[in-house]
Amino acid sequence: MSTVQAGMAAGSESKLQLVHKHIRAFPDFPKKGVLFRDICPILKDAAALTAVIDLFEEHVRISHQQVDLIVGLDARGFLFGPLLAQRLGVGFVLIRKKGKLPGATVSVSYDLEYGKAEAEVQEDAVAAGQKVLIIDDLLATGGTLYAACELMRKQQAEVLGCMVVIELRELNGIDKVKPHSVFSLVQY
Amino acid sequence: MSTVQAGMAAGSESKLQLVHKHIRAFPDFPKKGVLFRDICPILKDAAALTAVIDLFEEHVRISHQQVDLIVGLDARGFLFGPLLAQRLGVGFVLIRKKGKLPGATVSVSYDLEYGKAEAEVQEDAVAAGQKVLIIDDLLATGGTLYAACELMRKQQAEVLGCMVVIELRELNGIDKVKPHSVFSLVQY
Repeated sequence: MSTVQAGMAAGSESKLQLVHKHIRAFPDFPKKGVLFRDICPILKDAAALTAVIDLFEEHVRISHQQVDLIVGLDARGFLFGPLLAQRLGVGFVLIRKKGKLPGATVSVSYDLEYGKAEAEVQEDAVAAGQKVLIIDDLLATGGTLYAACELMRKQQAEVLGCMVVIELRELNGIDKVKPHSVFSLVQY
Repeated sequence: MSTVQAGMAAGSESKLQLVHKHIRAFPDFPKKGVLFRDICPILKDAAALTAVIDLFEEHVRISHQQVDLIVGLDARGFLFGPLLAQRLGVGFVLIRKKGKLPGATVSVSYDLEYGKAEAEVQEDAVAAGQKVLIIDDLLATGGTLYAACELMRKQQAEVLGCMVVIELRELNGIDKVKPHSVFSLVQY
């Protein structure tokens, strides 16, 4: 048993290394003083993308007995959410910027670095009591993940947690999303 | 052999029916006179989303001997592109609205119903001669798919074709994208 676990740990480590290797940093983007972490190389490498979804799936299967829906954020949450949802055999729900979703929606406004934005979900996308996981590419200040949690709370869904590829630790986004947890693959 | 083909045809038909059943129509969205086709129910149903990717994969395997990359458009192309890319074991390249991608990019401007927009791809995302398939959720006037084809032409990639879930025939988007072909699952 300990051998199996060690083998699994080694496998997980190399998958993580593969993910790490496919994240690039661009200084001063989108503005001076910001170091932008670019996930495009992950998407461009089939094995690296598989590794991301493997690691997400592993975490979900260890941590949650039942997941009803994966909820993802426009636009980069859309890159990973449907892949994880398909692995788990569950549906994917879109959270979008205001004005993009037809029909009855619920919305929440949240703070950006400058000004405010609004996020929306279709009213019938999530039912009361459904267990959801929220996914995005990156946790920075936590504003958009906070908005996603708020939308789920309004719909009386149960947020099991949030998942991101990258967490930028110095921005303390984790505090903003509390009491919900954020699972991340790579931390800077 | 004919029995196998009939069986395949029947299977394909029921997958298509499943996709059809999960597209909703909303009149007067985003503005009066427009009938909006909503694909959110496809994403929310694991079997319907699997059916979309099955049908895309089947088309690719029949039509193209070699595909190097799937290229997808911000934001709803991101919902389907990585799934298809993973099925085919190839990478996924992001086309985004101007200002979203770090590093050296190439851009192209295209016409919207009112005004213009710009689409971008990272300069190193596609190499000359690579064979790419472009994916989006919907073909309407064809402006964004045209922009995607133009970006690939600038990078000297070979566009094998475009793929969408829905084609709105009366808008003649297919003419805009010529000489490239557009494969669609559902036509209105």
